[in-house]
Amino acid sequence: MNALVFEGGRLGVKAVPTPDPLPDEALIRVLIAGICATDLEIIRGYKGHTGVLGHEFVGEVVECADESWEGRRVCGEINIGCGSCVRCFASLPGHCTDRTVVGILNRAGVFAEYVTLPIKNLHLVPDALTDVEAVFCEPLAAAFEILAQVPLGSGSLVAVLGDGKLGNLCSQVLQGSGARVITIGRHESKLRLLEERGIETRKLGQVLPYDPDVVVEATGSSTGLQSALDMIQPRGTIVLKSTVATLSNVDLSPIVVKELTIVGSRCGPFQRALAALLERKVEVRPLISERYPLREGALAMRRAGSTGILKVLLDVADG
Amino acid sequence: MNALVFEGGRLGVKAVPTPDPLPDEALIRVLIAGICATDLEIIRGYKGHTGVLGHEFVGEVVECADESWEGRRVCGEINIGCGSCVRCFASLPGHCTDRTVVGILNRAGVFAEYVTLPIKNLHLVPDALTDVEAVFCEPLAAAFEILAQVPLGSGSLVAVLGDGKLGNLCSQVLQGSGARVITIGRHESKLRLLEERGIETRKLGQVLPYDPDVVVEATGSSTGLQSALDMIQPRGTIVLKSTVATLSNVDLSPIVVKELTIVGSRCGPFQRALAALLERKVEVRPLISERYPLREGALAMRRAGSTGILKVLLDVADG
Repeated sequence: MNALVFEGGRLGVKAVPTPDPLPDEALIRVLIAGICATDLEIIRGYKGHTGVLGHEFVGEVVECADESWEGRRVCGEINIGCGSCVRCFASLPGHCTDRTVVGILNRAGVFAEYVTLPIKNLHLVPDALTDVEAVFCEPLAAAFEILAQVPLGSGSLVAVLGDGKLGNLCSQVLQGSGARVITIGRHESKLRLLEERGIETRKLGQVLPYDPDVVVEATGSSTGLQSALDMIQPRGTIVLKSTVATLSNVDLSPIVVKELTIVGSRCGPFQRALAALLERKVEVRPLISERYPLREGALAMRRAGSTGILKVLLDVADG
Repeated sequence: MNALVFEGGRLGVKAVPTPDPLPDEALIRVLIAGICATDLEIIRGYKGHTGVLGHEFVGEVVECADESWEGRRVCGEINIGCGSCVRCFASLPGHCTDRTVVGILNRAGVFAEYVTLPIKNLHLVPDALTDVEAVFCEPLAAAFEILAQVPLGSGSLVAVLGDGKLGNLCSQVLQGSGARVITIGRHESKLRLLEERGIETRKLGQVLPYDPDVVVEATGSSTGLQSALDMIQPRGTIVLKSTVATLSNVDLSPIVVKELTIVGSRCGPFQRALAALLERKVEVRPLISERYPLREGALAMRRAGSTGILKVLLDVADG
């Protein structure tokens, strides 16, 4: 099969062996995959991952020990634990020290014609959702994780720092919580997308009506945390979404002086994301900037890293 | 009156005017004052405070519009808000943007024969407590704040990073919570003090039985946070107690990858601290390393900053 492979510092589409599913796994034909900021970080050296990239996908099960899955459209959770340690028993495979992570850590990714995944990682995609909606399930779930972590009063002001893909999804999700949401960004076209969904926006540096109770840091940049620390209310909560490797020379004293809470936020609940897509509470299609066939995967990755671009999709089924 | 003054980069005891209490204030004769790490930070330039230093004290009210206070022994909270802003109405004077802070921000401190403080900041010291116990009320309250901020299960493992004054008080307070507490430090003599109270200790670098659920960072050093981030369990909570101005080059990515919560923790409940002292749940006397009269205040400050020293007290009433 063909796959987009990162190896020896080089990125390119090449033929690799089609994977064989283990007894508890499904073999999935990938329909569409999404390029995420983490994929771009990996080709800059983050995590040292090599091999097939990609972890956002929608696909169709073509082979599975449990035949009821065959022919079904699925998306899938990306962490695979060892299954036998204390963290796996605590339903935290994402924190298993022996875990693999699709396209990120010791496991082939979804920028390929086929991928294998444990059956327990799969989520059925409802028929009412299109492929391009379903491919947003993983990042949308990550946005929903915020609601599970931070209590939001209806009088709260939430500032979302970042008007990119993740900032947009977080803003839409939080807008549905009853809190007042203001998204702060640098790009007028991206802010306009949010305004069309009824979400207030500010250009970075513009004043807010008052200091936010909650700031969601989704800039993907190392300066985002400092901005969050500076603008937030005393006793407020900052949700950190960006996995920037090193944040150097941040003045962290506001954490103590303002008695802040900082919450690291990673993956989230797929079912809640699928439900929100079904109920049309979140609109993902305007986030799609460009689409490429798998064979143009290297170009697609370059485009995904360009200014002004939101989501770039790989139409894997188109070859 | 005499006072220990920091001015123009110099520290020394000098005569200054005795303060006049406002109608809602008490004039207090200071009996004993304690030197805190923040006082040492101030003479290194933190906050830019100049004037009379000090904020930990026990004293006797000598003049007050409400005469029932006169002759009573008191300690006092250190933040004074404007009284009319939204944060003051929310009972958060410590976050009032126009606040003064005793000996720290735009307000004379307690390393002086007399100090004025709003009546509402005062707490009566029970007769059963000695002066040297009562002077620990402010830092002990700060340790109790952790219990108000972080739920501790009886099966939790809490690591306290730091065997200094604050680390010791935090360890004693947390030991009473039902959690298993292990204090990690560099100094055998300081760790021994904790062991005598039945608290487990480790030298920095020694292995823990398992990764802690909660880490209290009370080292007062900028490397403490990195140690905390490295050792903590996924989904654990780090309580930040050190107000180190800048923590440069900390790798903060574990916050997101491990889905951590970081909680900044400052001042705490005086009544709970006084109750714990009365009930002998916390023992503070072994923490006293040296005592000096006020006139030797500059020497006392130098000693307080020396290796191996815990609490240094100023016997202000002795002149």
